Amino acid sequence: MTIFIENALMPSGKKASILIEGNKIEAINPKEKDKGDVVIDAKGKAVMPGLFNMHTHAAMILLKGYADDYELHEWLTNHIFPVEAKLRSRDVYYGTLLACIEMIHSGTTCFNDMYFFEEEIARAVEKSGMRAVVSKALSAQSYKRAEAKKAMKKLSGFERVIPALGPHAIYTTDEETLCDVKELASELNVLIHFHLSETKKEVEDCLKEHGKRPAEYLADIGFLDSKLINAHCVWLNRKEMKLLARSDAKVVSCPTSNLKLASGIAPLKEIIKAGITTTLGTDGSASNNSLNMFETIKLASLLQKYKHFDATALPAKQAFELATINAAKALNLKAGAIKEGFLADLCLINLKHITMVPNHNLISNIVFSAEPACIDTVICDGKIIMENRVIEWEEDVKEKAQRIAEELVSA
Amino acid sequence: MTIFIENALMPSGKKASILIEGNKIEAINPKEKDKGDVVIDAKGKAVMPGLFNMHTHAAMILLKGYADDYELHEWLTNHIFPVEAKLRSRDVYYGTLLACIEMIHSGTTCFNDMYFFEEEIARAVEKSGMRAVVSKALSAQSYKRAEAKKAMKKLSGFERVIPALGPHAIYTTDEETLCDVKELASELNVLIHFHLSETKKEVEDCLKEHGKRPAEYLADIGFLDSKLINAHCVWLNRKEMKLLARSDAKVVSCPTSNLKLASGIAPLKEIIKAGITTTLGTDGSASNNSLNMFETIKLASLLQKYKHFDATALPAKQAFELATINAAKALNLKAGAIKEGFLADLCLINLKHITMVPNHNLISNIVFSAEPACIDTVICDGKIIMENRVIEWEEDVKEKAQRIAEELVSA
Repeated sequence: MTIFIENALMPSGKKASILIEGNKIEAINPKEKDKGDVVIDAKGKAVMPGLFNMHTHAAMILLKGYADDYELHEWLTNHIFPVEAKLRSRDVYYGTLLACIEMIHSGTTCFNDMYFFEEEIARAVEKSGMRAVVSKALSAQSYKRAEAKKAMKKLSGFERVIPALGPHAIYTTDEETLCDVKELASELNVLIHFHLSETKKEVEDCLKEHGKRPAEYLADIGFLDSKLINAHCVWLNRKEMKLLARSDAKVVSCPTSNLKLASGIAPLKEIIKAGITTTLGTDGSASNNSLNMFETIKLASLLQKYKHFDATALPAKQAFELATINAAKALNLKAGAIKEGFLADLCLINLKHITMVPNHNLISNIVFSAEPACIDTVICDGKIIMENRVIEWEEDVKEKAQRIAEELVSA
Repeated sequence: MTIFIENALMPSGKKASILIEGNKIEAINPKEKDKGDVVIDAKGKAVMPGLFNMHTHAAMILLKGYADDYELHEWLTNHIFPVEAKLRSRDVYYGTLLACIEMIHSGTTCFNDMYFFEEEIARAVEKSGMRAVVSKALSAQSYKRAEAKKAMKKLSGFERVIPALGPHAIYTTDEETLCDVKELASELNVLIHFHLSETKKEVEDCLKEHGKRPAEYLADIGFLDSKLINAHCVWLNRKEMKLLARSDAKVVSCPTSNLKLASGIAPLKEIIKAGITTTLGTDGSASNNSLNMFETIKLASLLQKYKHFDATALPAKQAFELATINAAKALNLKAGAIKEGFLADLCLINLKHITMVPNHNLISNIVFSAEPACIDTVICDGKIIMENRVIEWEEDVKEKAQRIAEELVSA
């Protein structure tokens, strides 16, 4: 299958045509005007790489708005865990699909997920047309190497699914588990998705238990690695940043969730300066309560300006890169930019949408002004998964998910 | 004209019908089922009061994205002021109308504006169907009492326009001007729209020049008053809060703009606790770059949670009130809630929009999840100004405004 996009405004500000062949961008402004099987006239539209949401618990969208404005411990213990205990595989399938609807509508083509029932998540990814890292969620209690190995094999059988191991965090695992997970990840060449240094309490508890800060502890047990993707990293200090940089471990900042749960503001500017591959995520919808990456990109930039008392900190272009090219790098994908040979994961933006008028600077409008509704068409892996704001299967999933959500919270 | 809305989900979580007569909500669940001239079946929709955007420079939307990521002084002097010097009355008319499109689409029915060419702003308000406070922007240089008086008279002739005097800030006015403005406002019974304590520099300069902090200075010259609406108030201390509370002066927090220009986070929780009528605004689009009040309400709540290291701070319901009932109180309007006898300024929300699914808690979804695209229909002053996401006159205005914006920044 080939798709030929004409007259699209590029992030550079120039107009171009784009030829997509299979799942790749074959050519920008091809000399021979080979039209594709599908021709899209993008007049009045701009093209941007699909966004990466690098930390999600997608199916938690079922609990969106169910318990807000609580302190973290009460939130988890009295509200989230009791409902999660009732989750069945079917719920996770429809919850993940519901999240995919929100992500596609807001220009996201790839997400990095961690939740229960990983096979159902993978099935939802396949159905949605999106790309995703799907990890097997693990704790010290639940981890069994043979099972984890089997899960990785199963996940690798799904289309557009990148398998990963998901040990939850230092406070829900132990040294033995983490070392074994690391060994298995190396053996199978899969990613590790982890929560690191999200709260001050995590750091304090780690200092008490191990006499060192979380990233130091992980370095000492040999857990740090280029395949390790660390969500949050709100409380890293300079020494820990150096350790992460040296091992080429990755960082995902989740600014909205970190504010909502009163965790803090990550030292993003310093993390980037330390040479760490840095990206962005929303976290699950229960602690955000949105999967809108435009909001996350904007907030990431704004919070660094605030934190450094410097309006020039984390400017638009750099913030945009966190959610595109940097994330692709973290996943070792040739993606995240509109370039020949890159994965055809991209979106068309309606330039007549109110957030794009006037259009003095496309990147600035995308970062500081855009709303999901400006996204007109989404292509992932060379296939159109949303056209003119319509995802074919969405109404049915919304109805089913609404019913499932109601059942979950009823006694 | 009467409008009868059936089957609408209320913020309370119950379904109701609403009878609108003239510009007021005549009855909730009227006993006689008098149908209106227009009947709206709101099945699958919720109703909420229209949002108030309490600090705007609406026409600055023409400069959205033109100059981002600059330090405040450079931003103003080298980028904003030179372009503003070229503004003509026609530009302000179309710029304001463009801003009205964005505000209506995101559920705002009333805004509090301060910019040049106030008559053109009032003309745009009239055309848009929205309600607005339109102030005459004033500085020590530009203020002439007779002119200001004439402007108030003219503004009071426009529909749905509340006239106000807009002395810019302490650093662009002087004691004589402020005292005269206050006297005139009392004489004519009009509001005063002011910038107060936006930056640390403003406070430091005031301390240097007057030996006291901005609100103390204003109290001492007798400027504080119940008709005074103070935008920003990022750097108020407790003593200043007491002074504002005692005089019943109002506060408008603009959290997004305050982050973007690296001004700081307003002590909103303390301001509210001091008993001050507190509301929210976006500020102009050049320093935000959005007029989306959903974003502002969410950010206001999230920043207080962060600032107080307390996930329970400024919960959803209270944050929502800042942008509705509190704002109506600040303007002395019987509005900002769906109640009998209140102004018929309200919105219908599409409950099938992805941000509203699932719907465990409507207020929580509105505050933490909603995107403008969930707004389906907007009624202001008893008239439908947007129906099924369509504002009749918007395409023409977008085209004209885009052209004007391009002309403005071209040399």
